[in-house]
Amino acid sequence: MNLADTNIQPVGDLSGALERLSERFHNNLSTAQAVREQHGHTMTWHENLPPDAVVFAQSVDDVAEVVKICAAHRVPVIAFGTGTSLEGHVNAPLGGVSIDTSQMNRILAIHPEDLDCVVEPGVTREQLNSDLRDTGLFFPIDPGANASIGGMTATRASGTNAVRYGTMKDNVMAVTAVLADGSIIKTGTRAKKSSAGYDLTRLMVGSEGTLGIITDITLKLYGIPEAISGGVCPFDTLEGACNAVISTIQCGIPVARIELLDEVQVGAINEYAKMSMRVTPTLFLEFHGSEAGVAEQSELFGEIAAEYGGGPFEWTSNTEERTRLWKARHEAYYSVMHLRPGAEGVASDVCVPISRLAECILATKEDIEANGFIAPIVGHVGDGNFHVSVMVDKESEQEQKAVDGFLRRLVERAIAMDGTCTGEHGVGTGKMKYLDAELGGAVDVMRTIKQALDPLNILNPGKIIRV
Amino acid sequence: MNLADTNIQPVGDLSGALERLSERFHNNLSTAQAVREQHGHTMTWHENLPPDAVVFAQSVDDVAEVVKICAAHRVPVIAFGTGTSLEGHVNAPLGGVSIDTSQMNRILAIHPEDLDCVVEPGVTREQLNSDLRDTGLFFPIDPGANASIGGMTATRASGTNAVRYGTMKDNVMAVTAVLADGSIIKTGTRAKKSSAGYDLTRLMVGSEGTLGIITDITLKLYGIPEAISGGVCPFDTLEGACNAVISTIQCGIPVARIELLDEVQVGAINEYAKMSMRVTPTLFLEFHGSEAGVAEQSELFGEIAAEYGGGPFEWTSNTEERTRLWKARHEAYYSVMHLRPGAEGVASDVCVPISRLAECILATKEDIEANGFIAPIVGHVGDGNFHVSVMVDKESEQEQKAVDGFLRRLVERAIAMDGTCTGEHGVGTGKMKYLDAELGGAVDVMRTIKQALDPLNILNPGKIIRV
Repeated sequence: MNLADTNIQPVGDLSGALERLSERFHNNLSTAQAVREQHGHTMTWHENLPPDAVVFAQSVDDVAEVVKICAAHRVPVIAFGTGTSLEGHVNAPLGGVSIDTSQMNRILAIHPEDLDCVVEPGVTREQLNSDLRDTGLFFPIDPGANASIGGMTATRASGTNAVRYGTMKDNVMAVTAVLADGSIIKTGTRAKKSSAGYDLTRLMVGSEGTLGIITDITLKLYGIPEAISGGVCPFDTLEGACNAVISTIQCGIPVARIELLDEVQVGAINEYAKMSMRVTPTLFLEFHGSEAGVAEQSELFGEIAAEYGGGPFEWTSNTEERTRLWKARHEAYYSVMHLRPGAEGVASDVCVPISRLAECILATKEDIEANGFIAPIVGHVGDGNFHVSVMVDKESEQEQKAVDGFLRRLVERAIAMDGTCTGEHGVGTGKMKYLDAELGGAVDVMRTIKQALDPLNILNPGKIIRV
Repeated sequence: MNLADTNIQPVGDLSGALERLSERFHNNLSTAQAVREQHGHTMTWHENLPPDAVVFAQSVDDVAEVVKICAAHRVPVIAFGTGTSLEGHVNAPLGGVSIDTSQMNRILAIHPEDLDCVVEPGVTREQLNSDLRDTGLFFPIDPGANASIGGMTATRASGTNAVRYGTMKDNVMAVTAVLADGSIIKTGTRAKKSSAGYDLTRLMVGSEGTLGIITDITLKLYGIPEAISGGVCPFDTLEGACNAVISTIQCGIPVARIELLDEVQVGAINEYAKMSMRVTPTLFLEFHGSEAGVAEQSELFGEIAAEYGGGPFEWTSNTEERTRLWKARHEAYYSVMHLRPGAEGVASDVCVPISRLAECILATKEDIEANGFIAPIVGHVGDGNFHVSVMVDKESEQEQKAVDGFLRRLVERAIAMDGTCTGEHGVGTGKMKYLDAELGGAVDVMRTIKQALDPLNILNPGKIIRV
């Protein structure tokens, strides 16, 4: 990030803050170089910008205390979960204190009758589902990484199930959050619906630690479906695959997952996961319902696919086979890293109305080819959302410049189609420059809200919007 | 509303504002007593507090112009749709100008491939569905009244389909809104998912005209299901009906509607709609899906109902019969008015976690009986949301006082069960006094946001929160 682009208050009395934090947190405060760097560099391709210190918070009171101390000394505070975000959300461009919430990992309550639970922010999605297993319930949101629920909430994450179960915005019922002055609020109740004033829950979801630090989350849960079927369907063309998706959604088939992998991504997974799929644009699908229901959905989809040059659609209700399939899909990100040893992956995502999906992906592939990039495409296409991972030699200034231009064009293309610069990765520092083009004057409203709720600009400064 | 309870800026230069509005809007401005009173008294039981003038807006530019003029003269502006809200949302406790959006009733775009549309705020839900008929799509949100989409958005409305399709919060993709200074923003795009900054769409949904005036709305649409079945299931006890609902939701039956009517409401509908249902707690249900799917769901529900003393569950896929059934359900509100001629209905709603629903309704019925009220209960019970309509003689101070106490206890009971003071009616003036008890310090955050976005407090002042 170019700091000259921003207009942020300077760091205040850091040493004063560290002294008080040390008195309060002893061994749960670290200023070790390795720990700091680990918290300033995540899975992102953005520069490592470490915080000045890391506090391993154990409770909401710990978080409130850190924020109070930092507010008194005007020192930035950055919430940290598992560090799997992609747009530089947890980097510390202005230094400050990272609050690592990974040890706040208790599941506080499970209410099976109400299909909800309350968790601390450091609980990961895999941990939650593992703990839920005996209840017959599950939490569907699955970004590629085993992210923390706190981080997923803060970045409005989604994943492969969003087409059926929605994103974090749809599945967070309430949060407890520590505000910029150290006060603690709860944004909602466990009622499934409410019209009681402004929707502060949704305001906190996706605010990336810039309005408050989330210390517990009430989540919706779902019954594990009676039956699940899944399968893989190759297509002759990318356009055919996209049109099959549109038709599937329009027919109201309640597909649980419908994922597109382009032929480059299929090749990468074949190699990484030792599979032998046909190297062509391919849809991965999953259906949830009753035994009869998933069979009906699978058959219907097969018919639609055939109309668009797809097939054969091979599907199964066998758990082991399905698990292998989706494990491969979830490893897409890692498999890409092997395509060009030594290179780094630059991952970006956009989302467009589904009617524009084929056009947007095809234009993007042309751009990739014109630049000679290795850059697989994979998409949560039921929602019009897709990802590109460009393999880039970070040592080459020329390549980096070419990638920057490509990413800019990708976003401009999506926005021109009434889409968004990020479907699920969030803004962080990486997408800040695109918000004005997408949302115009609405960005000023975001800035006004940020300034009103964090007048000292200590909560994750330099992210989402310039203040 | 007791104005002494609030702390609102006084009305500014009203006559100056009216002069400028008159120059600009000619016949689209009215100060006639009857028009003003019509805009200050809605379906609510709250006092008629008419605005000083009404502008019939034709476009977003009209709305922006009214707001600019009113801002320059510090005069309140109140958005008005169809006037069917229940908590005094459009009343004018401080006078000012009502912006009637009912003539902004164009459907601006329908995108069948993307399952979305863009409408002006004055479009009503019935108008929208009537216009959609040829597309095979529908918009599911159905509050009792034929409300405007703008009003439904502003109050975060829902209705009988929410258990399957969500509320307005889940179905509004973006809005255009005029802010307190007359500037115009768009809060989102037509992308189905976005992580691009703060969720201003959800902030506007449910803000009741206090943060901005909504001038167009992008809505999700759904394919009309291939098959719909519906039916009525009487229960021996209210508890049995509630437990059948819990079990149905837990089993993951994707019920489209599951509505509870207590025996008083069943009796009222029998009389009003000339029906002959058994006068006992009754569930109204609807299932959406394929032919096989709705049959399977209906059978499954019948089995569950039988376990809890319910049945026979008589269901049908016949459109005419179903329509008659749901018309009766939608007339519940009106049927109540006939229970005690001369009395007025005071309608309130709360929402609790579903596990507490039976307990909450039973305690409420005890309270009704102890007071000797005529007060039917009807509920969107799949979401834990229910309504009580108390018939009250407004001339009797004693009765009014008893009702006030009853409503307070109803809300306190819901909040004590981790529920909300309003599931879908909104806050308006009627529920303001309960927000602190429900949300504590979060109300201060709402106030901070309101003050930051509307520093002169001209947008629907005296609603939701005191500033």
